[in-house]
Amino acid sequence: MPEKTFAFSELYEAWPVLSISERVEGFELLQRDDAEEFFLQLSPPDQAQMILALPPGERRLWMRLLAPDEAVDVIQEAPAEEREALLLLLDEPTRREIKGLLDYAEDQAGGLMNPHYARLRPDMTVDEGISYLRKDARNRTETVYYAYVVESDQRLLGVASFRDLFATHGDKLVQEVMRTDVVTAPEHMDQEALSHLFVRHNLQMIPIVDSDRRIKGVVTLDDIVDVVQEEATEDIHKIGGMEALEGPYLQIPLFRMVQKRAGWLAALFLGEMLTATAMGHFEAEIARAVVLALFVPLIISSGGNSGSQASTLVIRAMALGEVGLRDWWRVIRRELATGLALGSILAAIGLARILLWQGLFHVYGEYYLLVALTVSLSLIGVVLWGTIAGSILPFILRLFGFDPASASAPFVATLVDVTGLVIYFSVAEMVLRGTLL
Amino acid sequence: MPEKTFAFSELYEAWPVLSISERVEGFELLQRDDAEEFFLQLSPPDQAQMILALPPGERRLWMRLLAPDEAVDVIQEAPAEEREALLLLLDEPTRREIKGLLDYAEDQAGGLMNPHYARLRPDMTVDEGISYLRKDARNRTETVYYAYVVESDQRLLGVASFRDLFATHGDKLVQEVMRTDVVTAPEHMDQEALSHLFVRHNLQMIPIVDSDRRIKGVVTLDDIVDVVQEEATEDIHKIGGMEALEGPYLQIPLFRMVQKRAGWLAALFLGEMLTATAMGHFEAEIARAVVLALFVPLIISSGGNSGSQASTLVIRAMALGEVGLRDWWRVIRRELATGLALGSILAAIGLARILLWQGLFHVYGEYYLLVALTVSLSLIGVVLWGTIAGSILPFILRLFGFDPASASAPFVATLVDVTGLVIYFSVAEMVLRGTLL
Repeated sequence: MPEKTFAFSELYEAWPVLSISERVEGFELLQRDDAEEFFLQLSPPDQAQMILALPPGERRLWMRLLAPDEAVDVIQEAPAEEREALLLLLDEPTRREIKGLLDYAEDQAGGLMNPHYARLRPDMTVDEGISYLRKDARNRTETVYYAYVVESDQRLLGVASFRDLFATHGDKLVQEVMRTDVVTAPEHMDQEALSHLFVRHNLQMIPIVDSDRRIKGVVTLDDIVDVVQEEATEDIHKIGGMEALEGPYLQIPLFRMVQKRAGWLAALFLGEMLTATAMGHFEAEIARAVVLALFVPLIISSGGNSGSQASTLVIRAMALGEVGLRDWWRVIRRELATGLALGSILAAIGLARILLWQGLFHVYGEYYLLVALTVSLSLIGVVLWGTIAGSILPFILRLFGFDPASASAPFVATLVDVTGLVIYFSVAEMVLRGTLL
Repeated sequence: MPEKTFAFSELYEAWPVLSISERVEGFELLQRDDAEEFFLQLSPPDQAQMILALPPGERRLWMRLLAPDEAVDVIQEAPAEEREALLLLLDEPTRREIKGLLDYAEDQAGGLMNPHYARLRPDMTVDEGISYLRKDARNRTETVYYAYVVESDQRLLGVASFRDLFATHGDKLVQEVMRTDVVTAPEHMDQEALSHLFVRHNLQMIPIVDSDRRIKGVVTLDDIVDVVQEEATEDIHKIGGMEALEGPYLQIPLFRMVQKRAGWLAALFLGEMLTATAMGHFEAEIARAVVLALFVPLIISSGGNSGSQASTLVIRAMALGEVGLRDWWRVIRRELATGLALGSILAAIGLARILLWQGLFHVYGEYYLLVALTVSLSLIGVVLWGTIAGSILPFILRLFGFDPASASAPFVATLVDVTGLVIYFSVAEMVLRGTLL
C-alpha cells in the first residue's frame, strides 16, 4: 500500500457515511496530488456529485481531469438538467467527442470506449513509429500498450504491441511488424459479450470499429474488470430474488431498497398463494390424515432447494458463455440424471428418519410404513421436478428475451412449491387409499 | 473477430464435448500459429491435459510457450505423478523460478505473479532506460507497461509507466520521472483482497514484494479478471446452495456434480426435518383447525424469500468490500426497517386476499376475520425475522472464519422455515384461542 496522508485514508474510510457537504469539506482538505488520485478512484456517480457540489470556478479543473470515457459516465450519472452545464466545462474538441460518445448506451462497447488511442501509419519505420508515439504520449490521458495501424480514412489494418515495436530492429516497416488478425468489436456490442471477448482471447485492449472497419476508439481491460464485477453483482441480486440494486448496499436510500425488493417479494407472494389454493383442494385429506401435513414443508422445500441449485448453475454457465440456448437438451439430460440421483439420496434419508422416529417415539401411527413410502416417493418426484424446472426456466426466460438470472432461487422455489404439493398429495392418494385416506 | 481458419473455430466450438484423443487430433490439424493461439487461450487444466496427451517429443515446445505463472498453473493442475516430468521439460533457470512459485498457494498473490518484469536503475537516463527496455523486451514473454525502479538488492524504489518514460525528455534521470507511492502487495495476500486493490486503485499491474520490500514478481490485470470471474462464480454457486463446481458446467463429470450438490442438499434436508418436528408439536391445533395448515407454505416461503434477499445482498456487499464485520450494526438497522416495511406490504396483500376469497367463495369459515389477522400478523413477524436472520448470518459465518457466501438462499430458507412455523402457530394460539383453537 502506498503511504497515504492521514487525510486521504480517513476520507476514504469515512466516505460512504458522509453527507455531500462533509465530502466536499474533506476533499478540499486534501493536498493537490492526493485530491487528484482520490477523485479518479471515485465511482462516476460520486464524481458527478462531487463536481456539482464544488464552487463553479473549481468544476472545470476536475471535469477536465477525466478521460473522455470517464467524462461520459459522469455526465450520464448527473441529473438531466445539469448535463449541459457539465458539457460546457470541457474544451470544444473534447465536447464534440463526448457528444459523440453520449449517443451510445452505457452498457454498449461504444459507451465504454476511449476515443483516444495510439495510431501509426503502415509505411512508417519502427523507429519513426516509436518516436511518433513518444511525442503523442504527452497529449494522451490513458496509458497505451498497443498502437493501431490505420489507413488515412481510419480503416484498421493491424495492431502492433509496444513490445513488438520495442523488440524489433528500428528500420523495419510498421506493416512488417504488425499483426493483421485483430480482434475487434462493433460499436453496439453489449458489454457482457465484450467482456467474453476479452476473457476468451486474453486481451488488454480491443478496438471498436464501425461497419466499414473504421476504428472509433478502444476499450481497455480496466473498464472490463468493472463490467465483470457489475454484471456478477446484478446476477447475484437477481438470483437472490430481487431487482439489482445498482449501487453499494450501504449507500442506497432505504426507500429505494424497499422498492427494489418489494416488487419481486410481492410477486412471489402472489404466486405462493396458489399453495393455499392447492392445499385447499386437499383439505379433506389433511383433515383425515393430519400426519400428511407434517411433511409438507420438508417436501416442498426439498424441491425448492434442488431447483435453486439447478437454476443457479445454469444462470451462471449462461453468463460465462459456457452454455447457450442450443445446449438445452444436453443440460436437461444432465439434470434429469442428477435430479434422479439427488432425489433418491433424500428419499433414503427420509425413509430412515421416519423409521427411526417411529421406532423411538411411535409418532406416525399404525400405517407408518405407508407414510414413509409416500414421503420417499414424493421426494424423488419433487426433487426431480425441481431440478428439471430449475434448469429449464433460465432457457425459457432467455428464449423470450428476458434475463435468465431472473430465474432466482425464490422464483423457482415458488414454482416448485405449488407443483410439489400436487405431487405429494397425489402420491399420498395412491399409496394411502383404503388405509389412511 | 479475427478471421480464423475453419479448423480453429470448429475446434473451439466443439472443444467441451470432445474426448481427449479427439482434442489432440483436432489440435494437430491446426496451423502452427493458430495452434499457438488456441493453446494459449485454453484453461490451465486443459493445457495440462493437452501437454500430457501429446507425444513426449512435442511436449517441451508447448510447455515452453507458457509464461512462468501459466506454467505454474499447468503444473498445479496436472496429476501429482506427472508434475516432475512436466518440470523437466523446462530449461534450468525457468525450472528454478517455477519451483519458487510452486511454494505459493494458487489463490495467493505469489501464485498469480509472473517473476519477469521490466526493471530499471534509478540513475539511468530516460533514453538509456528506453533502449535497455527495448533490448530486454526481446527476452520477455509478457507485455509490460510499467518498469520498476529497483536498487541492486531488488528493493523497490519506484515505478515509471512507459507513458511517463515516453512523455519525458530523454536526458532526465529515471529517478526524476518515477513515482514513489507504489501500490504493492505482500506475497501471501489472498487473491480476492488483491483484486480489491486493483479495482480500488484502478491499476494495470501490482508488484509483489517480500517483507523487506524486495520485488518478487508482478501480477497483471488480466490475471485479476480471471480471479474476479472465478470468485463471483464460486459465490453464486454457494448462494445457490451447493459447493462451488470449480469447472465449466458441461465439463464436470456427472458423479462429481452430484457430489457437489448432494452434501448441501442432504444437510438442508436434515435441517428441514425440524419442520416436521415443529409441525408435530402443533398437530392437535392442525387437527382442530385444518384451515391453519393451508397457509403454512405461504407463510414460511415468505420468510425464506425475504431472508434470501437479505443474505444475498450482504454476501455480495462483503465480497465487494463494501461491508465489513464492523458494519454489522448499520446493516441490521437497515434490515430491521426494510423487513418491517416488506412484512407490512405482504401482510396487507395477504389480508386482502383472504377477505376477497371469503367474499367470493366463503372458504375460510365463520372466523375468517381472525384467520386473516393470524396470517397478517404472522407475515410481519416471519418476514421481519427472515430479513434479520438473512442479514446477520453472513456476519456470523465470517466471524467464525467461514465463507459468508455459504449463507445461501436455501440455507437461510431452511433456518427461517422452522422458526417461521413456531411464529405462525404461536400467533395462531394467541389470536384464535377460544374460537377455532
